[in-house]
Amino acid sequence: MGVNHSLSEPLDRLSDAVADEMARVNALIRDRMSSRHAPRIPEVTAHLVEAGGKRMRPMLTLAAAKMLGYSGEYHINLAAAVEFIHTATLLHDDVVDESRQRRGRPTANLLWDNKSSVLVGDFLFARSFLLMVETGSLRVLDILANASATISEGEVLQLTASQDLKTDEDIYRQIVRGKTAALFSAATESGGVIAGASEAQVRALHDYGDALGIAFQIVDDVLDFGGVAAVIGKNTGDDFRERKLTLPVIKAVAQADARERAFWVRTIEKGQQGPEDLAEAMTILQRHGALEAAREDALAWAARARNALKVLPDHPVRAMLADLSDFVVSRVA
Amino acid sequence: MGVNHSLSEPLDRLSDAVADEMARVNALIRDRMSSRHAPRIPEVTAHLVEAGGKRMRPMLTLAAAKMLGYSGEYHINLAAAVEFIHTATLLHDDVVDESRQRRGRPTANLLWDNKSSVLVGDFLFARSFLLMVETGSLRVLDILANASATISEGEVLQLTASQDLKTDEDIYRQIVRGKTAALFSAATESGGVIAGASEAQVRALHDYGDALGIAFQIVDDVLDFGGVAAVIGKNTGDDFRERKLTLPVIKAVAQADARERAFWVRTIEKGQQGPEDLAEAMTILQRHGALEAAREDALAWAARARNALKVLPDHPVRAMLADLSDFVVSRVA
Repeated sequence: MGVNHSLSEPLDRLSDAVADEMARVNALIRDRMSSRHAPRIPEVTAHLVEAGGKRMRPMLTLAAAKMLGYSGEYHINLAAAVEFIHTATLLHDDVVDESRQRRGRPTANLLWDNKSSVLVGDFLFARSFLLMVETGSLRVLDILANASATISEGEVLQLTASQDLKTDEDIYRQIVRGKTAALFSAATESGGVIAGASEAQVRALHDYGDALGIAFQIVDDVLDFGGVAAVIGKNTGDDFRERKLTLPVIKAVAQADARERAFWVRTIEKGQQGPEDLAEAMTILQRHGALEAAREDALAWAARARNALKVLPDHPVRAMLADLSDFVVSRVA
Repeated sequence: MGVNHSLSEPLDRLSDAVADEMARVNALIRDRMSSRHAPRIPEVTAHLVEAGGKRMRPMLTLAAAKMLGYSGEYHINLAAAVEFIHTATLLHDDVVDESRQRRGRPTANLLWDNKSSVLVGDFLFARSFLLMVETGSLRVLDILANASATISEGEVLQLTASQDLKTDEDIYRQIVRGKTAALFSAATESGGVIAGASEAQVRALHDYGDALGIAFQIVDDVLDFGGVAAVIGKNTGDDFRERKLTLPVIKAVAQADARERAFWVRTIEKGQQGPEDLAEAMTILQRHGALEAAREDALAWAARARNALKVLPDHPVRAMLADLSDFVVSRVA
């Protein structure tokens, strides 16, 4: 993510607010990733889970439950289940994308093999459902099973939509809901459901997570082109090289003249890219204000996220969640 | 499987007994494999689901519910969920094993790609849990989530145990429970639970499926070496070439003299196989009666399956399930 430390304060404050609960989530994760018969399962899982991800998704579940004054234990289960689903998704994504690095370390598919990544992902997915069953709530099972289906649906859609210039902003939003927003919204929503939130509150928690996830992903898209200023940096252009139809590109394609269109057809659809093409892509994006327009969209989604929180109880955690929506877009401020 | 038609009568009778229900299962499968956004999902699923598998696992769920006089609708959901889990497992297995053929057709990973197989498998897995949520029974969710975890655990164990001559009959049984028996027993058990079976009946249904699955897998192992007579045929020796520690090999390794041990180390552990080695492996298996001993084990498991049915209601389907256990081993009779 390339988080600037001073900007990450809202995340740190939220992290502090749920630190005790997160310690229990981590203990539960370690317990449930174990396998009596197959030691490779905890090895592969630990490689990823203990690589120091931000635990943003389980944090959202814990925050939602805390904001609603939940005094039970099942938010710990749900947060661990959400992290297991996320980890399973990462393991499978790295196989699908043939990735070699994740969180600054070699990927599991590289250190072990694709087989282990596929099967350990399946194992974690199954264990996540066992964690949910223990809560006794069919509704959270419904929410998280639906999110899981949406995640894989979004990934399949991305497979077929990627490199296709017909991909429009509607399809983009469906892909992003799958890639990011579905698990964000399921994380907040299930935390609310287990805490006995009202229907209006449950809907608000869903909308918050959904909007936060979409904002988060658009920001990633913009940063991949070096931010609104379009400055080439260390990790600039990965999406372009992978020929992904991200939001800035979709906006630029919609406004392309014949010459620009030929450029996108060659570089994205046909994948014929030379060393100067990233700079040329960034020039075209700038010409149409596509990065700025995508940034505006991200800000609008962040505002929607903040706005959704209004019906939720006035609680210190609510303010932190509101700040988190600003934080997510502060990376392109 | 290479089923001789006259021998398949018990399966046909069972299939006829639940034909109406299976038609509804198939309709539900078609409905739930659809995706509004990603048409590739039903394409990939249909390729496998409609290739004419025997639907043995959903048949077991329907049979269990019918035997217990169930009059509700949820056995249809569970049978479809069981078939989705099975299909997801096959899609992922074919990626893991780099298979090129399944049910006489090219595999999905070959026709599309590994990515689609991984992601569509994930989608079906998620949808299977949604089908279970609709039944309102946390207990069937628990049973099938546990089975799913056991399946991937068994597959990971097979990854690490394969090619390792230290694999003994205990490890073998754990692998087989994962590969086959876990879903068989979850299929029968969940059918009983949804029908309101007593605890003793639920246990009996679990034990039946478990024993049937183990017998089924051992028979496959024996057939892979051409049956007890060890006759080289069209599909003989796949497991040997893949260096799998199947039950006949485990039994022969346990009795190997120094020369034989060197043979197994070379062919299985080191994977150095020449054109004469399959015939030599079969000679060694014959020398120790390893195929015959494995067949005896299969017969014993089939007898256990039949025996488990005793506490279940006297019903035409019960007799069919009993015959099915004989049918499974009749392939090596």
